[in-house]
Amino acid sequence: MSGGPDRGDRLQARGVTLRHLPLNTDARGALSFGEVGGQLPFLPRRYFAITGIPAGAVRGDHAHRECHQFLVCLRGACLLHVDDGTVRDEVLLDSPGLGVHAPPLTWCTLHLQMPGTVMLVLASDPYQANDYIHDYDEFLRMVQSMGQNR
Amino acid sequence: MSGGPDRGDRLQARGVTLRHLPLNTDARGALSFGEVGGQLPFLPRRYFAITGIPAGAVRGDHAHRECHQFLVCLRGACLLHVDDGTVRDEVLLDSPGLGVHAPPLTWCTLHLQMPGTVMLVLASDPYQANDYIHDYDEFLRMVQSMGQNR
Repeated sequence: MSGGPDRGDRLQARGVTLRHLPLNTDARGALSFGEVGGQLPFLPRRYFAITGIPAGAVRGDHAHRECHQFLVCLRGACLLHVDDGTVRDEVLLDSPGLGVHAPPLTWCTLHLQMPGTVMLVLASDPYQANDYIHDYDEFLRMVQSMGQNR
Repeated sequence: MSGGPDRGDRLQARGVTLRHLPLNTDARGALSFGEVGGQLPFLPRRYFAITGIPAGAVRGDHAHRECHQFLVCLRGACLLHVDDGTVRDEVLLDSPGLGVHAPPLTWCTLHLQMPGTVMLVLASDPYQANDYIHDYDEFLRMVQSMGQNR
């Protein structure tokens, strides 16, 4: 029940948006959701969940060549850094009512803020090892060469 | 990285399967995943998450006419009842490494087992109020008429 696509709030990093997700709370708990045609800007072909993150741990710390990601913190809190190679945003994800769409060529880093945190990530593509960019300098070179080709 | 479709373990209720999901644990926590073409038997067009479930609460308690669901307990534990109108299975979902595929016309009920539980459900269709069957007697009549038409 989306009422049409939600384009979200644009952050500074190129193409990254913050989405406000419906969150219905009653005596039986809280239900949050996202759907294609509403809050989700792509059809997910993969999900992954990160749990049991120890204090001080950092997750992510890479970019994707083609894969879109949609990140939601379902429990606890994570500080998300999204970096397009030029500017970087910090977003505190501390509610299942907040999602971030990170398009390809966004360097994402997650910094745990609370024990018991559960992160959900929906991805546009199945896992492909060669879609990952783990080297930040390589990422910067890719972003730069993309800029020159525009 | 699925190595082809995983058809899962068949439960007694018609069409319901238990899927064993990859769960990679290291010093930075645990990562579990499912993807289309591997563990996920349909393309999800919606996800929803249930959090903050109070002690003793029951969620679900309905069936869908056409929507497929894939249920994973990302944290804590839930006892899932899946009922096809003739037989009923009970599955303890207590790990992000376990998922259940419930096809249409499966009556699903979730019984919270632990505080801090986080349930993730992927659904094959966007939300449609008229896809829900909330009345158990109506569900039984539908299942019966489907059986007669087979």
